[in-house]
Amino acid sequence: MPEPTTNADQLKAEIVARVGTPAVVVDLDVVDRNIARTQKLCDAAGIKNRPHMKTHKSGPMARKQVKAGAIGVACQKLGEAEAMLDAGIEDILICYNILGAARSGKLADVLRRAPLKIAADNPVSLAAYSEAGAAAGRVVDVLVECDTGRKRAGVVTPAEAIELARLIRDDPHLNFKGLMLYPTGEDWPAVQRYLDETLAGIAELGLEAEIISTGGTPNLAALGVLKGVTEHRAGTSIYNDRMMMTNGAATQEDCALSVYTTVVSRAAPERGILDAGSKTLTSDTGGGLDGHGFIVEHPDARIAGFSEEHGMLDLSKCVDKPEIGEVVRVIPNHVCVVVNMVDRIVGVRDGRIEQIFKVDARGQLV
Amino acid sequence: MPEPTTNADQLKAEIVARVGTPAVVVDLDVVDRNIARTQKLCDAAGIKNRPHMKTHKSGPMARKQVKAGAIGVACQKLGEAEAMLDAGIEDILICYNILGAARSGKLADVLRRAPLKIAADNPVSLAAYSEAGAAAGRVVDVLVECDTGRKRAGVVTPAEAIELARLIRDDPHLNFKGLMLYPTGEDWPAVQRYLDETLAGIAELGLEAEIISTGGTPNLAALGVLKGVTEHRAGTSIYNDRMMMTNGAATQEDCALSVYTTVVSRAAPERGILDAGSKTLTSDTGGGLDGHGFIVEHPDARIAGFSEEHGMLDLSKCVDKPEIGEVVRVIPNHVCVVVNMVDRIVGVRDGRIEQIFKVDARGQLV
Repeated sequence: MPEPTTNADQLKAEIVARVGTPAVVVDLDVVDRNIARTQKLCDAAGIKNRPHMKTHKSGPMARKQVKAGAIGVACQKLGEAEAMLDAGIEDILICYNILGAARSGKLADVLRRAPLKIAADNPVSLAAYSEAGAAAGRVVDVLVECDTGRKRAGVVTPAEAIELARLIRDDPHLNFKGLMLYPTGEDWPAVQRYLDETLAGIAELGLEAEIISTGGTPNLAALGVLKGVTEHRAGTSIYNDRMMMTNGAATQEDCALSVYTTVVSRAAPERGILDAGSKTLTSDTGGGLDGHGFIVEHPDARIAGFSEEHGMLDLSKCVDKPEIGEVVRVIPNHVCVVVNMVDRIVGVRDGRIEQIFKVDARGQLV
Repeated sequence: MPEPTTNADQLKAEIVARVGTPAVVVDLDVVDRNIARTQKLCDAAGIKNRPHMKTHKSGPMARKQVKAGAIGVACQKLGEAEAMLDAGIEDILICYNILGAARSGKLADVLRRAPLKIAADNPVSLAAYSEAGAAAGRVVDVLVECDTGRKRAGVVTPAEAIELARLIRDDPHLNFKGLMLYPTGEDWPAVQRYLDETLAGIAELGLEAEIISTGGTPNLAALGVLKGVTEHRAGTSIYNDRMMMTNGAATQEDCALSVYTTVVSRAAPERGILDAGSKTLTSDTGGGLDGHGFIVEHPDARIAGFSEEHGMLDLSKCVDKPEIGEVVRVIPNHVCVVVNMVDRIVGVRDGRIEQIFKVDARGQLV
């Protein structure tokens, strides 16, 4: 490599010498700024901050978030919840019908260790949670997952939500804790009507929604629009990515995570190969973005395709084409899936490697 | 779950009870058949078998392949080569310009331990290998990577290949070992002309290509078509996948790996959620297949999209729609990337769990 002449070059040289490429790198100064910004947005809206740890999957990162004011974390998997308990995080919401985990006995095992709040959108999940609660000798706090337009999981009507609340109320091993939703933001008045109608029905059951939880980094900009919300789950905002740059939730400077990768082949004038392919950057298109990541040094170069370890560069529109051996920084389309590819991340600060930290809950399927 | 009534149900019940879902499961009987079939095809063509371990990333699987007749393995990464050395595999070809690894000092470290054959398509890679060889006190065997139509890495013309062979010949730390290519199969006579012209030029340099290595599971059907080939690298054929089913290289019965996943939500009549999303099955489309995997029990159900932990089921064309709690078997689009998501795989035989084995080289970036 040429002699480093800038801080960015110096950092690249240090990364190449210490870990090689490709390397997944997080700028810890940017992380600190992002954590503070998310907390400030929640504080300003009077809404509790429950960051989703799926993005970082790291105990120390979760502790940073709690230290900055977060009440706890959101998880998708029991294995993630275990990693958070290991890190000393106590207030945990699992935003998922963890049926396939509950049946393995693992839910009961974790409940023996600590209480959990878990989402459900159907009676089969409730029955599995109840059984696990009974086995563990602990009442399970349940949030009813509501769908207000995303068409993923979540009951579609207030009537269904109320019926699930009734089932929870009538089960001695379950406790109704509230509602969980992931608003699409397309029609806030409709979401508010769904919420109000559900809360009215739940009140008639003699229940109260102690928690009303919304989610999504893009929705941070709309905190406070929905009345009644008590807490918010944003995941991506700690690291950000090209998807967030594209939807306006972040700028390039807010992107804490990059993949440092070397141009290892330039077999023809208009193309090249990066040593980061689908086993590093993943094939996630970030909701249909063009190309597989943003190359900071060559914004006009396109990552046109992948093999497992090859990133196919289309340089036809690239004026200053990278040579073989150049190390470039790629902001991935979707950061959450890239973090999940690696056991360790290189943490940098002030242009130097500060620490190499573990992705504690990487690859937790169950 | 309902009482198991078939062997398949029994196995599902055992997987759910022991590991939960999603679970990545390999049928070891199918693996044994696939290994034998690939070896037989190579033997029949008089070509050495060098399976690519990127698919299984497992020491014991590589040993099975060698026991069946393979001469060694192919790798893409130094970390993979280390895992193979740990497993006692001696003959290793790295089919990649491992420039970003060489510069970290890791190449010299591995060369101190064992000899390696490595591919290169440019002088910058050669210089890095030479430096590592010098540091390790070992001459590095190099194969020139040739591109005969795939447009990935590899020199495009025989003249470039010959020039690289000359550079290798003239470097005291490098030894010219042969040629590596990944034919596209679209124009075999053109590939043969490329090969013959390159070999003629190399002979004029006083060199001989001890190895001429081709690759690809689909190309197993064309072994012997190219004259001069000494060995073949097939990766996927040990497990197979939906991509291989689609291109005719495998049948459903040849697919050894499946993801067992539970239907955890059915929020509307025509849709549902699997507990396997892009963090399990990956967003790899397998070269543009429709949907994100093949559901064995419901071939008319479509995995229409993913969140990280949600597989979005489109059941609009599904006659016998799965209910919440049903466990289904998904054959992934691209098996190599799915294996790389998990630390451990459930190995089954005769409808029972035989062992849970490690994916030794999972997530080896460098």
